[in-house]
Amino acid sequence: MGSVIDTPPAAMQGATPCLDARLPARFAAVRERTVELAAPVSAEDAMVQSMPDASPTKWHLAHTTWFFETFVLCALPGYRPVNADWQVLFNSYYQSVGPQHSRPMRGVLSRPSLTEVLDYRARVDAGLHDAFAHGELDAALCRRVELGLQHEQQHQELILTDLLHALSCNPLRPAYRDDLPSSTAAAGPLDWMRFDEAIVDIGAPRWPGADAFAFDLESPRHRVLVGAFALATRPVTCGEYLDFIHDGGYREPTLWLSPGWNRVRAKGWKRPLYWLDEERHFTLGGVRAIDREAPVAQLSYYEADAFARWAGARLPTEFEWERAAQGVAVDGNFVDAGRLQPVGDARDGLRQLFGDVWEWTSSAFLPYPGFRPLDGALGEYNGKFMVGQQVLRGGSCASPHDHLRASYRNFFPPEARWQFAGLRLAKDLA
Amino acid sequence: MGSVIDTPPAAMQGATPCLDARLPARFAAVRERTVELAAPVSAEDAMVQSMPDASPTKWHLAHTTWFFETFVLCALPGYRPVNADWQVLFNSYYQSVGPQHSRPMRGVLSRPSLTEVLDYRARVDAGLHDAFAHGELDAALCRRVELGLQHEQQHQELILTDLLHALSCNPLRPAYRDDLPSSTAAAGPLDWMRFDEAIVDIGAPRWPGADAFAFDLESPRHRVLVGAFALATRPVTCGEYLDFIHDGGYREPTLWLSPGWNRVRAKGWKRPLYWLDEERHFTLGGVRAIDREAPVAQLSYYEADAFARWAGARLPTEFEWERAAQGVAVDGNFVDAGRLQPVGDARDGLRQLFGDVWEWTSSAFLPYPGFRPLDGALGEYNGKFMVGQQVLRGGSCASPHDHLRASYRNFFPPEARWQFAGLRLAKDLA
Amino acid sequence: MGSVIDTPPAAMQGATPCLDARLPARFAAVRERTVELAAPVSAEDAMVQSMPDASPTKWHLAHTTWFFETFVLCALPGYRPVNADWQVLFNSYYQSVGPQHSRPMRGVLSRPSLTEVLDYRARVDAGLHDAFAHGELDAALCRRVELGLQHEQQHQELILTDLLHALSCNPLRPAYRDDLPSSTAAAGPLDWMRFDEAIVDIGAPRWPGADAFAFDLESPRHRVLVGAFALATRPVTCGEYLDFIHDGGYREPTLWLSPGWNRVRAKGWKRPLYWLDEERHFTLGGVRAIDREAPVAQLSYYEADAFARWAGARLPTEFEWERAAQGVAVDGNFVDAGRLQPVGDARDGLRQLFGDVWEWTSSAFLPYPGFRPLDGALGEYNGKFMVGQQVLRGGSCASPHDHLRASYRNFFPPEARWQFAGLRLAKDLA
Amino acid sequence: MGSVIDTPPAAMQGATPCLDARLPARFAAVRERTVELAAPVSAEDAMVQSMPDASPTKWHLAHTTWFFETFVLCALPGYRPVNADWQVLFNSYYQSVGPQHSRPMRGVLSRPSLTEVLDYRARVDAGLHDAFAHGELDAALCRRVELGLQHEQQHQELILTDLLHALSCNPLRPAYRDDLPSSTAAAGPLDWMRFDEAIVDIGAPRWPGADAFAFDLESPRHRVLVGAFALATRPVTCGEYLDFIHDGGYREPTLWLSPGWNRVRAKGWKRPLYWLDEERHFTLGGVRAIDREAPVAQLSYYEADAFARWAGARLPTEFEWERAAQGVAVDGNFVDAGRLQPVGDARDGLRQLFGDVWEWTSSAFLPYPGFRPLDGALGEYNGKFMVGQQVLRGGSCASPHDHLRASYRNFFPPEARWQFAGLRLAKDLA
Repeated sequence: MGSVIDTPPAAMQGATPCLDARLPARFAAVRERTVELAAPVSAEDAMVQSMPDASPTKWHLAHTTWFFETFVLCALPGYRPVNADWQVLFNSYYQSVGPQHSRPMRGVLSRPSLTEVLDYRARVDAGLHDAFAHGELDAALCRRVELGLQHEQQHQELILTDLLHALSCNPLRPAYRDDLPSSTAAAGPLDWMRFDEAIVDIGAPRWPGADAFAFDLESPRHRVLVGAFALATRPVTCGEYLDFIHDGGYREPTLWLSPGWNRVRAKGWKRPLYWLDEERHFTLGGVRAIDREAPVAQLSYYEADAFARWAGARLPTEFEWERAAQGVAVDGNFVDAGRLQPVGDARDGLRQLFGDVWEWTSSAFLPYPGFRPLDGALGEYNGKFMVGQQVLRGGSCASPHDHLRASYRNFFPPEARWQFAGLRLAKDLA
Repeated sequence: MGSVIDTPPAAMQGATPCLDARLPARFAAVRERTVELAAPVSAEDAMVQSMPDASPTKWHLAHTTWFFETFVLCALPGYRPVNADWQVLFNSYYQSVGPQHSRPMRGVLSRPSLTEVLDYRARVDAGLHDAFAHGELDAALCRRVELGLQHEQQHQELILTDLLHALSCNPLRPAYRDDLPSSTAAAGPLDWMRFDEAIVDIGAPRWPGADAFAFDLESPRHRVLVGAFALATRPVTCGEYLDFIHDGGYREPTLWLSPGWNRVRAKGWKRPLYWLDEERHFTLGGVRAIDREAPVAQLSYYEADAFARWAGARLPTEFEWERAAQGVAVDGNFVDAGRLQPVGDARDGLRQLFGDVWEWTSSAFLPYPGFRPLDGALGEYNGKFMVGQQVLRGGSCASPHDHLRASYRNFFPPEARWQFAGLRLAKDLA
Repeated sequence: MGSVIDTPPAAMQGATPCLDARLPARFAAVRERTVELAAPVSAEDAMVQSMPDASPTKWHLAHTTWFFETFVLCALPGYRPVNADWQVLFNSYYQSVGPQHSRPMRGVLSRPSLTEVLDYRARVDAGLHDAFAHGELDAALCRRVELGLQHEQQHQELILTDLLHALSCNPLRPAYRDDLPSSTAAAGPLDWMRFDEAIVDIGAPRWPGADAFAFDLESPRHRVLVGAFALATRPVTCGEYLDFIHDGGYREPTLWLSPGWNRVRAKGWKRPLYWLDEERHFTLGGVRAIDREAPVAQLSYYEADAFARWAGARLPTEFEWERAAQGVAVDGNFVDAGRLQPVGDARDGLRQLFGDVWEWTSSAFLPYPGFRPLDGALGEYNGKFMVGQQVLRGGSCASPHDHLRASYRNFFPPEARWQFAGLRLAKDLA
Repeated sequence: MGSVIDTPPAAMQGATPCLDARLPARFAAVRERTVELAAPVSAEDAMVQSMPDASPTKWHLAHTTWFFETFVLCALPGYRPVNADWQVLFNSYYQSVGPQHSRPMRGVLSRPSLTEVLDYRARVDAGLHDAFAHGELDAALCRRVELGLQHEQQHQELILTDLLHALSCNPLRPAYRDDLPSSTAAAGPLDWMRFDEAIVDIGAPRWPGADAFAFDLESPRHRVLVGAFALATRPVTCGEYLDFIHDGGYREPTLWLSPGWNRVRAKGWKRPLYWLDEERHFTLGGVRAIDREAPVAQLSYYEADAFARWAGARLPTEFEWERAAQGVAVDGNFVDAGRLQPVGDARDGLRQLFGDVWEWTSSAFLPYPGFRPLDGALGEYNGKFMVGQQVLRGGSCASPHDHLRASYRNFFPPEARWQFAGLRLAKDLA
């Protein structure tokens, strides 16, 4: 496996530097944004690992930095890592790069301290800025920077969702921030938008190659025959989900996929993950009243699927979703809005495709025809997870606005509940 | 949920009887065949449950009988079950029908005895034959009989694969049958057959409705745009799989899906499930020399996928597979051939699509667009398992010949290894 | 480790033969008794392993035979084992002898069949009888025969208790025997017998050496200072245990040892293992009415201890128990009485020390001062289990009468519930 | 269960105040000492819970404070807890007091912060000092203060051992303190001290009642007949333990108790817990060279027992140990010495009974005859753990000097390895 640097960048050979002049500023902004998101919590909060699937804030801060150090700075002649041991601690799952600290044991890493990790960030940032300034980054490395920023934006969302989980495990139910606004926006009626059968171009052109960034898993752009269907104009609300609960949704096995029903019984599920009862739930703003008009979130795929069956509908495929989203402006309730909780939207027509809640689709996370992972270690980014997971679309109230697009594919195991994940209904058209 | 009989059959109302005059004879033949398959083993062998996923032979004999009793005989006026308690013992997973004996505890059922279960079979068979003879079965019930026979054929294969697993756990490594032939047939070269992009009709017309039987999961027949691809003319052989092993396939993480690699390490996988070393493996005929020309079997999806990646190829989608199989005669090395082990086939051209080994596809087991489960309790047959599993195609040396077709979809979790499951390679065409 | 035969017997060197002329007859009787106990059940019943701690009847039949083959016949010149593979299958835990088949997988051993195992018994028995007849067994080997018979009697009890557990897991609740009598005997009052402080000789002289057989764990006989105490004249009855249940015994944490309370909650314990409700329980005779006058059985140590605390008393130490039992005739409701269930005893005075139920003591299972295991592989018999278990005394309704004595120590982990184990109260005397 | 205060103290009724004038100063000293021990580590270090059995430093700091608040301050009229929610968070296992935060989830408690916990300590300390000053504490409450201080000293040791475990799980292997001295003291020869059979007074007079503090589990003082034995004059050293390793100690099943051997295999044990190899181990001072002259530590009972068997000796009973320790001055390498690691001692004669390492005894942790737990909730302190654990004696290099005595009984499950626990050999005398 050996070297981290699988496709030796031409940096040292006088190759063309990075063309995108805005990259340094964008780098600075994204990196700074991560630190801002972590700012409301203490070094102790930033230590907590409340389950193996969730990581401490401090680890996210360090891992995203490790990514730039490993894949960009280490490719520069003469660079020496800030701390060779940290190469192991903060490697998530890149087997090609070397060994990894055990994932469920990230919570024991009291050292390095948060202060040291922030200093690590500063040093790596400085390294990047120097490299930008001195034109040391050729196009290949600039693409790695771009990938690193997209990667960092994914971790920005995980910082929030993992922290929400960590804080939810503390009986004191401390808030991430006390100053978050409450919403009283109405949801508006749920209508159905009809789509005829069509051959649709799905996915994004392969990057790099294409100018616009897309993850490898979104490519290649390819044609899919999508049958006629109807799509709900908005996501399912908390109020509608309460109807499902009141109608015995969590007690009726025939509504559930078989492993879903096993999970319901084994874990005693009775409501969405952070609902304390049918009135109050735990949020990044602490315990709040459940807003019945807001899209329901923190559902597993099993719950989303059972709700849809109960409603006499189904989940959309990711292709149906993408078809509906093509041409729709990527606007919505993203993390940038500062609400950090889904809210109702009473406008007419198809809405809330982007932001508020990730929408579970009925599509398993599989490679597109002709899928090719990125070269080298970065090929481990997505491809090796293409089994046993479901695709989600659209981004959430914890996603960065400029991170999403119609072709964006997120994925989680069907039992995962701690994301801002909800659903939008779909129906067959005869 | 209440009654077992969700759509009350019109039997008692003088409705049209069953049209297919061959059904009684077919019923007799399939039922008899099951008993023949179980005949070589003792009552003690028929008790063994060697893992939660596998069931004792006796349980298969009883469960398939329960199916006819529950879904056919119980619908007839005045019928009383042979033993009301057995309704629980031999219900597999039909929540709508009532409670089930715990699946991992099927091995404790020393009572009823094998003799009693065979008697149960005889009594239910007699009930069916009477009902046939007296014209008591209307079309709806005849369809249930047909479904029951298809169901029974699935369990015929499971009787063999579950028994093979059970016997493999006994250090004495007893054979299911001592008189099975050994093969020395050559495999012939692996060539590639090219297919152009096309819109393909996939699946079977919905049964009932359509004359020809198909499971609900194969319907509706629908159009899929299948891109250009090449398909290997035959499955991967044991000899080729040995090359993968010798090349360190089980030691190289980058060849594996992430949960596959975790499994390899956790379970210490080093070769296919029943390979004792690189020369001998355990079969229904006992310990035999590995036939390098025969298709490799007893692979998990993870292993099939890793092999394909190592070979610079990929697994086909189920749509690619079905496209290639359309129009191909359903011939091959099925259970009827009495070999009970895959064998090489040196003919030219596309071959062994049917029989020998189930072929793992890269398709997750998902509903087809417009999928509708069967009505009532029988709707639990397939639909509720549509998550977390992969599709296999083509049948195996343990499948009944008249049970398969091009649209047939089998499914198992990606870690399942105890089936006659192998792979056929596919490739993109630029 | 090498040879099974650690202390080479002098058989082949013309050493003194076995002195006890009754040994052959005793051998025949004990061996026959085991087969009688297994007779009421089918080959299928004899296969069931319902939990890792319990073994199939067939395995007990084979293992006890393996013991004589391994430790006696294999020591004779020229003897060849009936089947070398069975040496592994039926070795329980003798590391010095060689590898063992995995304990939780004993239920997969459909082969050898029950018939073959009974034939194995016959062949080994014949070997022993020949050896007796030809004077081939020297004193050392005769001692091994004696040990083997004592060992076999222990397994006679386990055959019954393991079968009871196996049958209890079958929802049909089949009886081991349908012809067992029901008891209506009254319990008589619970009085207290007082004992003054004394130095007591505890345990049995080391065998061999002493004439009378005793297990190594009962030796050496040694002096113990036992303080003054009072002992209940009879065991606790089902009726008294019902009072504990009705008083909330299973809901009050302060009555329980900490790991006991954790177990109560984790397993949902609410009553003794085989009580279906407060009226009926499962027995070797099938479902029967609970006899409130009979000693309560199938308790864990945790339950016995909690009951004693609730009753304002405590469990006796094994030394107190033995002191009380010294000089008491070993009479009682043993397996020989054919009841196979504890019964009330209305006589006056100290009673039921022997038979009916094993009595949990507050003594951990530890070596006596100067304890020395038997030589060689047989030293693994008891000594290596001397941690984490509690001592029980007195034998039960499933123990052979001629197997018990005042110094006899049985031991089980504190959570074990499937034995005929109950309790007798004790109290401090100021 | 209700009230925390089971035996209502007479504080408010003008009862006799506390007689021991030194108690306030002792209270201040012990409480201050705990904070000193925690001082070298950061708030992040103080958060780590590296396994369910070990608690974060911060939790220890809070729990010991909760003890005084709950059992002393809450008994005073008008006292209101600093934070009612913390009553749950920092209750360890007192069922009588109320619910407890899940033990394995102590590591998620980022709130309250370390600063808040230190403030909690200060406020409760102030409450105690006020109560002392105003004579509000009657004799009963003063006894609770005394118990709380003894309790706190136990947690002082756990702070160190739990921290050592937490830091050992960090691949950076950070030291608790960098300034710890290394020892080069020689061990001196291992001789045997002989003791004749005797009736020995074991244990301490019941406190309160007796003036001198002792835990309830040390009482009542009672007579035990202790047979003749020989005791090694010093503990086993690292060098001697290396001989055991080199001789294949971890590979020879016949040296081990059965559950010990299972553990060795399941966990892959090859050396003491913190030995990185045979040269270096992890200590509170970071990675250090193994001092072959120092007593070996961080052994499980299984390892201590196996070593003794290998050495042709055995572990002493707790009665033998106490007999030998009676009259011996409680001097040794305690935490007060500031070494925080066992060291060799070359003096002649019986030595190191106190300090250096806890010595595993062959005695199970059981109640002494006539044992009576403390009244009320405090009765849960020790009694409910009297099953499945082994007694250790003598204190360690992490124990406070003034906390130990000859009758002191510590206890841990046989698999526990993270304490400064070693062994001293004993032998039978014929």
